[in-house]
Amino acid sequence: MTSRRPTIGVFDSGFGGLTVLKALLELIPAADYLYFGDTARLPYGSKSVETVARYAVEAAHYLESHGAQFLVIACNTATALALDRITAAAHVPIVGVVEPGAEAASTVSINRKVVVIGTEATVGSHAYRRALETRGLDTREKACPLLVPLVEEGWVDHPVTEQVARIYLNEAFSDGFREADVLLLGCTHYPLLKPLLQCVAPPHVNIVDSAESTAHAVATHMQNLLPPPKPTPEERRATPRLRFFATDSVEKFRRLGERFLGHSIDNVEHVDLKE
Amino acid sequence: MTSRRPTIGVFDSGFGGLTVLKALLELIPAADYLYFGDTARLPYGSKSVETVARYAVEAAHYLESHGAQFLVIACNTATALALDRITAAAHVPIVGVVEPGAEAASTVSINRKVVVIGTEATVGSHAYRRALETRGLDTREKACPLLVPLVEEGWVDHPVTEQVARIYLNEAFSDGFREADVLLLGCTHYPLLKPLLQCVAPPHVNIVDSAESTAHAVATHMQNLLPPPKPTPEERRATPRLRFFATDSVEKFRRLGERFLGHSIDNVEHVDLKE
Repeated sequence: MTSRRPTIGVFDSGFGGLTVLKALLELIPAADYLYFGDTARLPYGSKSVETVARYAVEAAHYLESHGAQFLVIACNTATALALDRITAAAHVPIVGVVEPGAEAASTVSINRKVVVIGTEATVGSHAYRRALETRGLDTREKACPLLVPLVEEGWVDHPVTEQVARIYLNEAFSDGFREADVLLLGCTHYPLLKPLLQCVAPPHVNIVDSAESTAHAVATHMQNLLPPPKPTPEERRATPRLRFFATDSVEKFRRLGERFLGHSIDNVEHVDLKE
Repeated sequence: MTSRRPTIGVFDSGFGGLTVLKALLELIPAADYLYFGDTARLPYGSKSVETVARYAVEAAHYLESHGAQFLVIACNTATALALDRITAAAHVPIVGVVEPGAEAASTVSINRKVVVIGTEATVGSHAYRRALETRGLDTREKACPLLVPLVEEGWVDHPVTEQVARIYLNEAFSDGFREADVLLLGCTHYPLLKPLLQCVAPPHVNIVDSAESTAHAVATHMQNLLPPPKPTPEERRATPRLRFFATDSVEKFRRLGERFLGHSIDNVEHVDLKE
């Protein structure tokens, strides 16, 4: 009998997408997962649309060829610059991180004013602004280039990070956006800073995490796309099988990745794609 | 009459090498300069030796084909991982940043204990440790991954940067290295932090800047390699001609680069190398 546990492929340029995987594991434990981190070619943020699309399509095909029946583009840059191209090139359904984040922000916001924080590349693409404005939300985008290196240094509850976050958020929640009631985390590194950001943001602000929102969007899509027969109770109870692929050092992926995923990572396989 | 002003090619993965160019312009104004920033493919730090060598050799050939008679590898990672390969592939004399920095540290240090700070990649290569230990210096290498993003954010005299530098330097100048008397800046971004680091480092410490040391090494080599006829007084007085090549956005290069070079950058040309 073929297993009715679906296999979900998650793709990111690096480690950040592991926060999306973490949210998926909590929400959809009755699935198996493949994770592809293109760590040798990161950051995507400084690369051209052409190059990002080519890299992302390569990764999507790699995941498909290893059995992924559903793809999650857990990379803001790849989603912003190349979701259409990846969708056209792939043979399975795809969800990116921007639309689910924007949709969740729209659901939560009462006064229709949202602050989005992300990397310089994501903010520069204005993908979140477009997705939010389509939903009638007034949007301020704020690049926070120091937050990713602070997370990667492991300083997630460090006084320096708090000070940096305070500077960025004071600038973002100013003037016309003083009363914005949603802070949308438009970078998959930021969920690790959620407790700190909750302290630093104005008290009336709700934090919407695009990693979590994406997991919810995937769950909804899966229900529509993979109808019954449902997994048997045994299949449901089985622990998700996880396989990780990284294009750079396996050791570094294991070490850094564990912080993002929240538990140990054992089986990382090195993938050699030409650069 | 052919100009007797030599043309010096400077190569870096990004902007940091502009601090080396700045030092060269001060020390050798009677030369013309080409600068190649491989901004589309940075950072080199996470890439394999093979890839870094291939990229650096491509850049070296590009500079040679545009008239460089002398090459400066103003990139710590490329110097650490691939100087031999670049030297073998190039047709003109080459100087990297590691040996000049180590030599200057050796000249300055009295108690033969040196702290080197750099990126994770540079520290991981142990290129400075080898160069310093060969000269009989006891060496502690300390990775300071937040300093590059802080410099790129423009926070070169910001309280946050001071706090971060204090944390890193306290860790570095501890235990057996409390009395180290040289702080070697093993990253071409760090010269912008020199005033701040001078305040934060223990008072007995001399800062040795590998950008400046490299410019001195180039001046010495040039005297040996390009003997008389010396440039005429007119040629000497002429302002150096500068040409910049960048593989990513010309606009971003201009904007960020000016901070490193200390004056405006006008003529940036985009170079399209395959990734």
